[in-house]
Amino acid sequence: MTAEAAEVLAALSFDRDGLVAAIAQQHDTGEVLMLAWMDRAAVEETLATGFAVYWSRSRRQRWRKGDTSGHVQRVKEMRVDCDGDAVLLLVEQSGAACHTGQRSCFFRAARDGTLVTIAEPVSAPG
Amino acid sequence: MTAEAAEVLAALSFDRDGLVAAIAQQHDTGEVLMLAWMDRAAVEETLATGFAVYWSRSRRQRWRKGDTSGHVQRVKEMRVDCDGDAVLLLVEQSGAACHTGQRSCFFRAARDGTLVTIAEPVSAPG
Repeated sequence: MTAEAAEVLAALSFDRDGLVAAIAQQHDTGEVLMLAWMDRAAVEETLATGFAVYWSRSRRQRWRKGDTSGHVQRVKEMRVDCDGDAVLLLVEQSGAACHTGQRSCFFRAARDGTLVTIAEPVSAPG
Repeated sequence: MTAEAAEVLAALSFDRDGLVAAIAQQHDTGEVLMLAWMDRAAVEETLATGFAVYWSRSRRQRWRKGDTSGHVQRVKEMRVDCDGDAVLLLVEQSGAACHTGQRSCFFRAARDGTLVTIAEPVSAPG
């Protein structure tokens, strides 16, 4: 474990499942790409490798973002919130953050009483 | 309940505690301000009033953001993610989002092996 990981880990409050929330944001445009989860090892591996690693709650396993899709997230900076239960990753997103092929997972907006798709996919689903 | 709330609620997957994650982002600058939680009633009240309402996991009660501090969040738009377990609020933040008086809760960054405070408070804590 790197010194950097040790200090970050000490500032984090993992929940009863051993997770913190992780927001990924495109570093230059500010676009919020996705919300995911990290366990302790995912935080360590992200800091050690410079690429985002998450914990999948549905598959119950660690998950190197882009391992199958190629849509990796190069992490420019990790920030920690005031109470340590969330991190913000400033990333360079390759291709689509969302499994639907959308750049961002937040591609639906509540507008005028309905939920509207506000973006087009940038890649095939997967 | 408004028609807008009904369609948004139908798209949401509340967790075992009846909550979804809610990211608040300053609508014009893209600054990520905080991560909080919403129960069904908080989503409804936010859509109905146009001001962010959350669920406090520590206090176990609903919480109108800014009720005591005055630092309200006027919601410009609510977005829903692909699997419906997170929402993104594009807001006009009055004053500080963070109880520490910082504009954003994400005011610490992992840099060169240490956790650095990268912003100054914009108001008194509270």
